This record gives sequence, C-alpha cells and structure tokens, in this order.
Amino acid sequence: MAAKAVVLLSGGIDSSTTLAIAKNQGFETNAISFYYGQRHQIELNAAKKIAKQLQVERHLIVHVDLGAIGGSSLTADIAVPKNRNLEKTTDEIPITYVPGRNIVFLSLALSWAEVLGATDIFIGANAIDFSGYPDCRPEFIAAFEQMANLGTKTGVEGTKIKIHTPLIQLTKAQIIRKAIKLGVDCSSTVSCYDPSTDGKACGQCDSCLLRKKGFHEAGILDPTIYQT
Amino acid sequence: MAAKAVVLLSGGIDSSTTLAIAKNQGFETNAISFYYGQRHQIELNAAKKIAKQLQVERHLIVHVDLGAIGGSSLTADIAVPKNRNLEKTTDEIPITYVPGRNIVFLSLALSWAEVLGATDIFIGANAIDFSGYPDCRPEFIAAFEQMANLGTKTGVEGTKIKIHTPLIQLTKAQIIRKAIKLGVDCSSTVSCYDPSTDGKACGQCDSCLLRKKGFHEAGILDPTIYQT
Repeated sequence: MAAKAVVLLSGGIDSSTTLAIAKNQGFETNAISFYYGQRHQIELNAAKKIAKQLQVERHLIVHVDLGAIGGSSLTADIAVPKNRNLEKTTDEIPITYVPGRNIVFLSLALSWAEVLGATDIFIGANAIDFSGYPDCRPEFIAAFEQMANLGTKTGVEGTKIKIHTPLIQLTKAQIIRKAIKLGVDCSSTVSCYDPSTDGKACGQCDSCLLRKKGFHEAGILDPTIYQT
Repeated sequence: MAAKAVVLLSGGIDSSTTLAIAKNQGFETNAISFYYGQRHQIELNAAKKIAKQLQVERHLIVHVDLGAIGGSSLTADIAVPKNRNLEKTTDEIPITYVPGRNIVFLSLALSWAEVLGATDIFIGANAIDFSGYPDCRPEFIAAFEQMANLGTKTGVEGTKIKIHTPLIQLTKAQIIRKAIKLGVDCSSTVSCYDPSTDGKACGQCDSCLLRKKGFHEAGILDPTIYQT
C-alpha cells in the first residue's frame, strides 16, 4: 500500500506541480485547499480541477477566516500592487504577504495528516521567487518540521513527520518545465492575485508577472488568458 | 504605552486565568477565540463574558473548520468519555485530543499578533493535567516559538516573539487559587466538553472531573451548576 501524503493545493502552478511530484514519487495523495477569505473563489475552482485531473485520493477544502485577522491585500480591502519591478523588490516583504499564512496552512495540513495517519506533507514553498516571504524559507520549514514532531501524537509516538518542499530552490522556469514533464495541465492553474469576475488573469500583479516571465524563460507558450 | 499581547481565550478557567495574568503583568490584552466546530457555543459565550469582565482591548473570534478535518470527540460524531479514572489515564492520548489544535490556534494567534504588532502570545497550556496532549508540553512550546521567529516578518526583522505559558507547571488547584486572587469570576467560565443545551456542565467528562477535583483540592466552593 502506498504511503499517504497530504499536499497543500492552492490551484497555482507551484502547488499543482508539487502534487504531481508527490504522485510521481509513489505517494497516495490527499490534497488540502483553503477558503481563507481570499478575494476570489477562482483559485479554489482551479484546485478542484487539478485535484480531479491528477486523481487525488481525497480533496478537502477547509474554511479558515484569515480575512477576520486582516493585514494583507489578499484578504483585506487593500489594493493589489500592479506592474512592480520584481528585480528591485526582492528584499522587502510585499503587501500581498498574508501574515503567518503558510504557518496556519501547514498546521491545518498537519492536523489532517494526523487524522489520516500520514507522515508526509508536501508544500510548494519557493525561496527564489518569494524571497520576501519569511514563511517560504528552508530554515522556517526545518523549524516547522521540528515543532510538528514535538507537538503531535504521530511525532511523539516516534514516527517522524517530514515536510517536503521539492520546489524550494527552483526558478519559475524550472518549475514550469517540471510541470509540463509530469503532465500538469497549466491551463487549469490560476496564479493571479486579482482576476476579473469571468476568471481572466490581470497580467499585472506580482504573481502574473512571475508567471509570464517563467513561461518566457522556459520557452513554453503561456496558456493563460490575460486581460491585458 | 503598554506592550500588546495576544491571549488565547477558550472561556475555561485556564485561559481566563492566563488572560488575568497577562493583564496583571501590564500588557494591553487582545483576546482571540475560535469557533472550530466544537459541539457547543456555550464556551464561546463564556469567552465573550470573560473578555468583557477583564476589559480586553479587543476580542476576535475566528472561524476555523477543524470539524471538517475530524478525528476527535470534540469536533466529530464520537462520544465524549465519561467518569474515567484520571489517575490511570495520564500516559495515553485521549479521544478528546483534537489533532494539532494548539498548533492551529497558536498559528492563528501568531498571524493576528503580526497584524497588531504584538510580540507576546499567552496560552494557558498545562503539562500537568493534560499530560496526554503532546501540544501542551514545554518542549513543544519552545519549538513553536523558534518556528515563529523564523517564519514571520516580526521574527525575521529582529523583534523576538515570545510564547508565554504561565500555567504550564501548575496543578488545577493552584490555577484556581490564582484565578480567585486575580479576580477571575469562575462562575462565568465553562470547562465541560459536553454541556446540556441549557448550559449545565455534565459533571462526568475529563474536564468536569478535573475542575471538581481542582476546586476540592483548593478548598474553594465550585460555582459550576452540574447536571449530576
């Protein structure tokens, strides 16, 4: 019987590729997504599509009201920045950073892993493109893993919990090449922080700019329909 | 100006006493409670009452659907154990343990602390009465603190985040004495895992048994109205 893994799935390219990697490594994949008060449900619909295409064992959507906590342009009423020069912004923490988001999401994934009897958790965290997000760095992931092993029944009973971050040192172009190789349907994924109501990507937020640049550098046609 | 603290408040004696301690130490207190799919809202009403009595600066209630994740008699359709011999059950992890609950709650408290600009988080975790809960142990709290300092903007920018656990080594009787000394209205607190619809404590779950025992040992009259 395949070992069970819990995979955080947002519906973007990174998490979809991470799911495909977990599957390719032989895990029984259990995808977890979050409705956390983000501005749009389009990414959750993408997550559902990808979960189905990659034939996960289970797909759980958990409601967690990060919007009540606030503090980010992704959950609060603050404008998403557009057309920033990404080369010049790598050291600052952007306004799209949701405080502690990966910590909360990993905690909920850990909780579900305990219930399922899974000891492997996959997250598409990336330290290259999101160098401004403290909760995407390898030293944070290592500390979370340590905490998980001390604070859960599984960890205490001696089965080691492992947080897998297969994309952590890859560029967007490398991630896109891996996605294509593993059969991820990139046209089903959504990266945009601020899509139109009919699902078109804005083409101007940090996430759209990174995606465009990644496809360009990978030499692969970007299937995304942009507004601009 | 007083330093800001975020205090996890469930509405039980432990968290209410912890809130009183934070206040007594001179912090501006910001209480956070969770609607997490627990069987009853009675404890949230208790939390609201205590927050008001102890004059917190803010009281935030965050919805997080731990019920969807399942695995515990507190969130899933599993009977709450009654009249167990607590002397004999200290080494096993009880069915009332919600997998990773303190990890999820601390993560959400941490997220709010970032938004508020607070670096102090108080939790009424107790390693004596809840020795079966891995996420109540001092070594877990230390690991969480370390992770928080690596995974947040506050921690990365050099202001140390501190997780305070003032009750961690106290017996229930000691906690009750401290509660009385600091003016906590124990009759407003709710400990029961399985109260009746009109708010009466069952008197038989682990939490009721611990509460009764604690008041008895402290030599203080228990103001709780029990069904039995």
